[in-house]
Amino acid sequence: MSRSKLFFDVSSSLDGFIAPEGMDLTHANDPEFKQWMSQWMKLQNWVFQQEFFRKNLKIGDVGETGRDNRMLEETFNRTGASITGKRMFDGGERFWPEEAPFHTPVFVLTHHVRKPWERPGGTTFYFVNDGLASALVQAQKAAGNRDIRIAGGANVIQQYLNAGLVDEFTIHYSPVFFGQGAQLFSGTSKDTHVKIKEAAASKEVTHVTFEVER
Amino acid sequence: MSRSKLFFDVSSSLDGFIAPEGMDLTHANDPEFKQWMSQWMKLQNWVFQQEFFRKNLKIGDVGETGRDNRMLEETFNRTGASITGKRMFDGGERFWPEEAPFHTPVFVLTHHVRKPWERPGGTTFYFVNDGLASALVQAQKAAGNRDIRIAGGANVIQQYLNAGLVDEFTIHYSPVFFGQGAQLFSGTSKDTHVKIKEAAASKEVTHVTFEVER
Repeated sequence: MSRSKLFFDVSSSLDGFIAPEGMDLTHANDPEFKQWMSQWMKLQNWVFQQEFFRKNLKIGDVGETGRDNRMLEETFNRTGASITGKRMFDGGERFWPEEAPFHTPVFVLTHHVRKPWERPGGTTFYFVNDGLASALVQAQKAAGNRDIRIAGGANVIQQYLNAGLVDEFTIHYSPVFFGQGAQLFSGTSKDTHVKIKEAAASKEVTHVTFEVER
Repeated sequence: MSRSKLFFDVSSSLDGFIAPEGMDLTHANDPEFKQWMSQWMKLQNWVFQQEFFRKNLKIGDVGETGRDNRMLEETFNRTGASITGKRMFDGGERFWPEEAPFHTPVFVLTHHVRKPWERPGGTTFYFVNDGLASALVQAQKAAGNRDIRIAGGANVIQQYLNAGLVDEFTIHYSPVFFGQGAQLFSGTSKDTHVKIKEAAASKEVTHVTFEVER
């Protein structure tokens, strides 16, 4: 049996959204639409300041190096494989840099049949057509002793959570309200039992890690 | 001008509900309906264990005395007046003990005209028929140098928040999912700007206090 944990790690607005209204392929070139870009920047503000993030995306060499930075680095280092939904991949295919930010095998849940797509820097996308469990098994094989991150979006996270397959998750609560958008926990089953593993706060964000009880 | 701050302090499920589905006057005597009572107990679990809460409600003399307890006590002590909605009052009128848990003047937003209702232990309910701002002004007069707590429900909290009248608020994130219920931040304006003032976690709950920026 795999020792890898299945987890997700997301920034959430205080009203529970992980992406603002208007942040979709249709409006990708229209950042003024519903101010989605500025809302997104507020949500991710704590991330953009961190040295690890800036180096990883090659957008800079300097940044914050405190606990927030260590958390990003640890999350990256523990991740041996990633899982995404089709919509997130479609957006990323268009906007991620050539060296996509995963640097792991990525299993994309989709009905679309496609050969694996290898990117420079260690990211290879595999297209999985036979469901959640199959993607998880493939990710377990790829991850070795490291963990598997559900990278998003919200819908894929919900499906794994309601299927009882998630081991733990971290929410970074950013002090921003969206009003509308992609809800993290829409329709989460009340049979989902969790307990707090760890919580910490900086000025920018509150981090809480939960363990799912089986 | 009043020095009193207007605040609220609520326990929230991880999916953003401050009361479970089915917790209403119709089902008050049917705790099995949607398991609302057991869901409510999970949400408030951290509170029920605290010495201050148990003594205040006269349901026991012993309890936890750590930081969670101090937070409850400080919140109680800073509160010079309270504001509630009509629905919360209607439920409480039926179920609060004779010595209602406020021990302050309470301003009830309602269309119902009624004389002040004094209870033993320092709680007097005043029925306000002319809106949010009027209730706030009356509460400021009553609170002196202490603060004013919006006791609930969610709808009243939202109205004060969207009107730009709230100074700060504390959310206690309990590790439970409701799926349905009374949402704390439904329809919160994205013009609401907040920053983290303080955050702390125990094993049972994560406390985060936010300041609203004006």
